[in-house]
Amino acid sequence: MPTKEIIAERFRTIQDRICAGLEQLDGKAKFREDNWLREEGGGGRTRVMAHGNLLEKGGVNFSAVEGECPKFLQQEIGKDAKTFFATGVSIVLHPDSPMVPIIHMNIRYFETDNGIYWFGGGIDLTPHYVNEELAEKFHRQLKNTCDKFDSKYYTEFKKWADDYFYIPHRNETRGIGGIFFDKLKEDANQSKNDIFEFVSAVGETFVNAYSEQVETTRNLPYTEKNKQWQLVRRGRYVEFNLVYDKGTKFGLQTGGRIESILMSLPEHASWIYDFKVEKNSEEEKTLLLLKKGKNWI
Amino acid sequence: MPTKEIIAERFRTIQDRICAGLEQLDGKAKFREDNWLREEGGGGRTRVMAHGNLLEKGGVNFSAVEGECPKFLQQEIGKDAKTFFATGVSIVLHPDSPMVPIIHMNIRYFETDNGIYWFGGGIDLTPHYVNEELAEKFHRQLKNTCDKFDSKYYTEFKKWADDYFYIPHRNETRGIGGIFFDKLKEDANQSKNDIFEFVSAVGETFVNAYSEQVETTRNLPYTEKNKQWQLVRRGRYVEFNLVYDKGTKFGLQTGGRIESILMSLPEHASWIYDFKVEKNSEEEKTLLLLKKGKNWI
Repeated sequence: MPTKEIIAERFRTIQDRICAGLEQLDGKAKFREDNWLREEGGGGRTRVMAHGNLLEKGGVNFSAVEGECPKFLQQEIGKDAKTFFATGVSIVLHPDSPMVPIIHMNIRYFETDNGIYWFGGGIDLTPHYVNEELAEKFHRQLKNTCDKFDSKYYTEFKKWADDYFYIPHRNETRGIGGIFFDKLKEDANQSKNDIFEFVSAVGETFVNAYSEQVETTRNLPYTEKNKQWQLVRRGRYVEFNLVYDKGTKFGLQTGGRIESILMSLPEHASWIYDFKVEKNSEEEKTLLLLKKGKNWI
Repeated sequence: MPTKEIIAERFRTIQDRICAGLEQLDGKAKFREDNWLREEGGGGRTRVMAHGNLLEKGGVNFSAVEGECPKFLQQEIGKDAKTFFATGVSIVLHPDSPMVPIIHMNIRYFETDNGIYWFGGGIDLTPHYVNEELAEKFHRQLKNTCDKFDSKYYTEFKKWADDYFYIPHRNETRGIGGIFFDKLKEDANQSKNDIFEFVSAVGETFVNAYSEQVETTRNLPYTEKNKQWQLVRRGRYVEFNLVYDKGTKFGLQTGGRIESILMSLPEHASWIYDFKVEKNSEEEKTLLLLKKGKNWI
């Protein structure tokens, strides 16, 4: 049975490997590391890269925090939960080129002193311009990882991602989705260790999945118009993260380190009043694809 | 007794006067007008100006919406409230120059079919660089308006603004505050009409109060560093509006027109990881002044 120490240690290793992979992919910038302690217990290792060959801004956070269970958590899981422990790896990468997609990945583990625990996680891709072939490749990578563990995972977690990475006030998905899952715990089919291995595999899939996207798009030429559209799409990303994202909310409510929580926000974003895409443009094509329930594979 | 029709009509007139005043102040750009209808009842008149002499982006919204009381409202005010009516004028102006402050104003009226009503409103100023003399002038204008109606208003509503226009996760006020008030209704001292006249006077104060700020700052020279700081401060403005602002939340929850609700967001904003101001810089001086409870007068 994986203990919280073992899980945190594995997550730390996954952060290391991802950072090494991303530095190689970028080819220029290095991650800056900030170790931080949380007053109420635990801390983290935030790594941020800026102004590289590939990334305008990207963060790969590891954290393992613990302390007294906040009231809003007790309301959800019961008053006999006195203390909690939460560890995870969180990534958001904002590339410089509008032709390269934004990507997010998160794996997380949560437990309380009264025996409650769960795993969660997800990966989703937000291309500024959706390329259906590349979208299929992305989903296929996720499906391959899922299928190694449970043949039902991909279908279930793909739908969960469609519902989660969704901006109701825009009636748009954030991007082409991916997988999302929460509160996974052992059942008749899966032991705690099985789930731990699945979550780790999601983490290990990240660099490969993103590299494939990057290699195909990083040398594409782009215009000022493409760049403006990128800024508008980043504005939507900010809207999702500040209004709806549960991880951001959890971080703000539990007094996490603000700079680590909000590293997900892009260096530059834009809001243009009543922005309209041109008829039959690439921007319109992308907008029409940002819908729930699309089967990319 | 002012009816909802009279109140909405007055608010529409205030929007007209403010737009005329702002066009004169800008000297170049004109407001674009969008009339919109809300499916469930009512609608609005959104006016937005962009790329003027003064403003990079600014919106002056009027709306008067009505319909069935949403559940979240009934939970607050009781189940016998079946329908609601809400009207208001909302303004956010993002100037081009970082030396000119961002300003926000809102006046609003709400009523239900079972006799509940209230007025609310506020003005607050968000200088990218705080000038204490100008801050005093701003607060003095608000105090003068308040004092004409009730000698306790300014003190009470100034404190309310400090508490409301506050970003807990940054431990910063949004700017130098101003006044904020909510759920004002008749009592032993004030009739409904008195409050209506006070709220109208707040609306009428807006152009004068902002003009004074603008005339003193619009010709100040500025550097790239000032411009970058402006983008970072605008990022904080976005954080406040998307995470905490009740008007934004109400709009998103009641299915308001998204482009009108989010016209408060700047055309460009920036998030730089772990941004630090230089010791003894003007930026540091401003940050140190963004605290609750400061008496500007």
